[in-house]
Amino acid sequence: MTLHVYLSGEIHTDWREQITTGAQDLGVIFTGPVTDHGASDDCGVAILGAEDNKFWHDRKGALINAIRTRKGIEEADVVVVRFGTEYKQWNAAFDAGYAAALGKSLIILHGREHDHPLKEVDAAANAVARTPQEVVQILRYVIDGTLPG
Amino acid sequence: MTLHVYLSGEIHTDWREQITTGAQDLGVIFTGPVTDHGASDDCGVAILGAEDNKFWHDRKGALINAIRTRKGIEEADVVVVRFGTEYKQWNAAFDAGYAAALGKSLIILHGREHDHPLKEVDAAANAVARTPQEVVQILRYVIDGTLPG
Amino acid sequence: MTLHVYLSGEIHTDWREQITTGAQDLGVIFTGPVTDHGASDDCGVAILGAEDNKFWHDRKGALINAIRTRKGIEEADVVVVRFGTEYKQWNAAFDAGYAAALGKSLIILHGREHDHPLKEVDAAANAVARTPQEVVQILRYVIDGTLPG
Amino acid sequence: MTLHVYLSGEIHTDWREQITTGAQDLGVIFTGPVTDHGASDDCGVAILGAEDNKFWHDRKGALINAIRTRKGIEEADVVVVRFGTEYKQWNAAFDAGYAAALGKSLIILHGREHDHPLKEVDAAANAVARTPQEVVQILRYVIDGTLPG
Amino acid sequence: MTLHVYLSGEIHTDWREQITTGAQDLGVIFTGPVTDHGASDDCGVAILGAEDNKFWHDRKGALINAIRTRKGIEEADVVVVRFGTEYKQWNAAFDAGYAAALGKSLIILHGREHDHPLKEVDAAANAVARTPQEVVQILRYVIDGTLPG
Amino acid sequence: MTLHVYLSGEIHTDWREQITTGAQDLGVIFTGPVTDHGASDDCGVAILGAEDNKFWHDRKGALINAIRTRKGIEEADVVVVRFGTEYKQWNAAFDAGYAAALGKSLIILHGREHDHPLKEVDAAANAVARTPQEVVQILRYVIDGTLPG
Amino acid sequence: MTLHVYLSGEIHTDWREQITTGAQDLGVIFTGPVTDHGASDDCGVAILGAEDNKFWHDRKGALINAIRTRKGIEEADVVVVRFGTEYKQWNAAFDAGYAAALGKSLIILHGREHDHPLKEVDAAANAVARTPQEVVQILRYVIDGTLPG
Amino acid sequence: MTLHVYLSGEIHTDWREQITTGAQDLGVIFTGPVTDHGASDDCGVAILGAEDNKFWHDRKGALINAIRTRKGIEEADVVVVRFGTEYKQWNAAFDAGYAAALGKSLIILHGREHDHPLKEVDAAANAVARTPQEVVQILRYVIDGTLPG
Repeated sequence: MTLHVYLSGEIHTDWREQITTGAQDLGVIFTGPVTDHGASDDCGVAILGAEDNKFWHDRKGALINAIRTRKGIEEADVVVVRFGTEYKQWNAAFDAGYAAALGKSLIILHGREHDHPLKEVDAAANAVARTPQEVVQILRYVIDGTLPG
Repeated sequence: MTLHVYLSGEIHTDWREQITTGAQDLGVIFTGPVTDHGASDDCGVAILGAEDNKFWHDRKGALINAIRTRKGIEEADVVVVRFGTEYKQWNAAFDAGYAAALGKSLIILHGREHDHPLKEVDAAANAVARTPQEVVQILRYVIDGTLPG
Repeated sequence: MTLHVYLSGEIHTDWREQITTGAQDLGVIFTGPVTDHGASDDCGVAILGAEDNKFWHDRKGALINAIRTRKGIEEADVVVVRFGTEYKQWNAAFDAGYAAALGKSLIILHGREHDHPLKEVDAAANAVARTPQEVVQILRYVIDGTLPG
Repeated sequence: MTLHVYLSGEIHTDWREQITTGAQDLGVIFTGPVTDHGASDDCGVAILGAEDNKFWHDRKGALINAIRTRKGIEEADVVVVRFGTEYKQWNAAFDAGYAAALGKSLIILHGREHDHPLKEVDAAANAVARTPQEVVQILRYVIDGTLPG
Repeated sequence: MTLHVYLSGEIHTDWREQITTGAQDLGVIFTGPVTDHGASDDCGVAILGAEDNKFWHDRKGALINAIRTRKGIEEADVVVVRFGTEYKQWNAAFDAGYAAALGKSLIILHGREHDHPLKEVDAAANAVARTPQEVVQILRYVIDGTLPG
Repeated sequence: MTLHVYLSGEIHTDWREQITTGAQDLGVIFTGPVTDHGASDDCGVAILGAEDNKFWHDRKGALINAIRTRKGIEEADVVVVRFGTEYKQWNAAFDAGYAAALGKSLIILHGREHDHPLKEVDAAANAVARTPQEVVQILRYVIDGTLPG
Repeated sequence: MTLHVYLSGEIHTDWREQITTGAQDLGVIFTGPVTDHGASDDCGVAILGAEDNKFWHDRKGALINAIRTRKGIEEADVVVVRFGTEYKQWNAAFDAGYAAALGKSLIILHGREHDHPLKEVDAAANAVARTPQEVVQILRYVIDGTLPG
Repeated sequence: MTLHVYLSGEIHTDWREQITTGAQDLGVIFTGPVTDHGASDDCGVAILGAEDNKFWHDRKGALINAIRTRKGIEEADVVVVRFGTEYKQWNAAFDAGYAAALGKSLIILHGREHDHPLKEVDAAANAVARTPQEVVQILRYVIDGTLPG
């Protein structure tokens, strides 16, 4: 069983690397957004030309990033969405809703301080994990039935 | 043409009333979540019994609220999502993603200060409105072709 | 908001009547299977002719009953599945799985003694209720936001 | 023609091994649930932390198992569901309903003593087999047209 | 429960009238093809202009008739397909396959002499009826649970 | 049978009125785009504020018009697309492709001089009509089986 | 571009071999039903046990054959349906309707004497071919743009 | 991440070669229509026999070309549609609408002089590019996050 996993959300810590490293023997195919914050913000104008208005500057970039996000989520069996401690992170919640509507399995990764504001997102998920290691353990169990310890 | 419109998001100001009042001659069928914050938080335990653990207290409520949200969004032609100035509002962004994946027309309603963090959500939308009146004007134009002024 | 609710499962107690009576002011459209056990078992041969082999006797009936079940579940917003204390009730669990795959909201109604064997079914549900009254309270809350008491 | 077959249901006898061994020359890709009963029951708390309440202990495990089940059934061409002589086996019937709603080909494997309570499930199936050998013979015929004997 | 029933197939006997008359108290909404053989054959050229080539004469008519057939089948809960004793009736079998792929409930109506050549069509059906009266009895039972006699 | 018909394409002649007038006894529900050229071009900036850049001026309007177009086409049984003698009319062809992908019945209305460049569009259609009267005749025949003359 | 082609219909002449041989350099993946008439008729009882009633004998076989047919058609890009000069061939027309409803490209292969009774089937097709060689030429053109001669 | 890209539209300049050459290190799988204008126009009659009427001559060809177009668009992650300076190009706009309805990511490639007539098409797109090089840059960024310069 080859699992396709999309890693959505926070891009300022190394949680993706922790998961892909921890799961490297499982044959999982991982995808995710472009995690270079500057490139992600500016890709639209860098390729298609500058905009005077920041609103359209952002729009051009977001639409190009959406090509990658859509492809990644639609091909995923599992979508992991990480909520960090900073920023609004509405794109992470948007991805979670998008994935839920497509019937994807969801794992939400966040600290307990966000339990209440994330309750609707968590309620659509198969698991709420607290650490990247827990995500790896879930993937390992799903793939080969092995539990930690 | 009878338009079904789901009003998602912020529940602490009267934006829903402004829209439904402003559009009252248009024959729109409006739906939305339960907007009594306390009832929305506690519906699960109030009906199905208390939980010691707040996490499951929240889960029981969120799953019951999801019955109404799913029905409302799936039957909607247009989903309006309002982001206010307070709270995390991840459920609003989740609804937007859910609606986008179902191919619903989206109108996002928010102030300019949220333009950048909402750029991915806005990029999936048919319109970004700044006031409830603009939402009413869009509905009016879509239904009968009349523009303001 | 007019809710369509399919009442699946156990046919030997009056739980359906308790729900439809309790919810009679809510404008819900209730559907369900034919609950006359004898008619349900024999409809195939009664209409299409006797079978020597009980297996095909059952098949003819089950296929006719499936016309009603499919129509009811596919048009439902919410599917309530009741597990009683007797019989195998595999058709109830089948309906639950069918409804889950179609993305219907599910309410499972059963006693605590069945919590463990029903854990996979419950995990696909929006609520696990213990009494018909709780089902009515959920429907009432979903429709008009009113909580009991 | 490479057939994907999901083997759902009873986990206490060696019926899966009989099928996979008997079909080993056919190039079938078999999947199925985790069949270690203890691991399957406890995976949720083993990975995500203990629960005081057995109901939520079960829920956490069932939701993680559902990741594997959903992936397996959605990618399957044929879902084989085995009903044994013990336990409630509602998860097996749930899987059958889920697969039926997705339009999967179904083979139900059970003894004659369950013909009547399984009549609705059998009526949704392409075949009702009595032994793992019959399942192998069906797969062989579907793949290369060869009949037994 | 309002059932939508499409009556497909043979157009040279009064079987449709027998069904609609027999079911007139059931509130069923019946649809079906244009049953005027000449109009059905010639509608394309009568409206859109003559064709020298009979092949395109037929094509123009068949494509216009398909508008009605598609609408009728897609809105139907149940598709009844009648095979008579004459003609090739490939359009009837085509309708049955079309309806089956859309997940519609099927009732096939034909004499025993066609059991063998119709076995694949019958296998996709919920019932094989021999007379219009049996079709009426099935509809009556599905709608209100009443059996004949 | 109530037919829903979306009238797409050219907005500078009275072809829509000819069809709706000619079909006024048929109970058809007609929808279509806003046909006030100026309003259609400027709706975005009129409601949501001016843009310096004509490209985004157009974008804001096109996205609002898309709410109406999507609703109309998705609810239609038949989409009629009119190609006139002037302008690029790419939005008409876009609507035709959109409708074709959704499996809608298509009627394309255009003069013979456009037969060759419209061959791919026509090949996806149920009928190629030359006059609004032919469209009315098709709708009449589809609804009640009556042919002209 | 790897094309998947399902070859449905008549099993008494060598048309399938003519196509697969003629197209052997094109990398097409061909599938089709079991073409051993006796095996196809008797597979159900040969594997699952004899039936006294020929109707159920046929049913058991048809349901097993449907596993292969469904898999083949659902994975196909193109479904070729051959109508020969003998037999009722309702299963061929059923396959054509099934494929049409799934949006598959259809090529119908038959002699001119069947043009009129096949007009509804042909109208759903991308091509009506008269010989297996024409089918090969279509596949060749679709894959690499080469025309005969 | 392997991206499937369909290149639709104008066939008289070398824009496809510029894109496939520029992207040759990205592992993209490109497809597109037959670009030999004469073959594309005449494929129907060349294979299936001449037609007296040019309308049906075109129809036969367009239906065969549609097999390739449908396959290409349905398997694509991204559909690039090029509008050139000549011809009606309604098939290009039709492809864009077809792709949009299937939820494909769209890149529209055209000069500024067509901004206004293409505004509805552009509004459904993820990017409006002016040169083949910009298309390559978008694909490169989507696949590996690299921006030009």
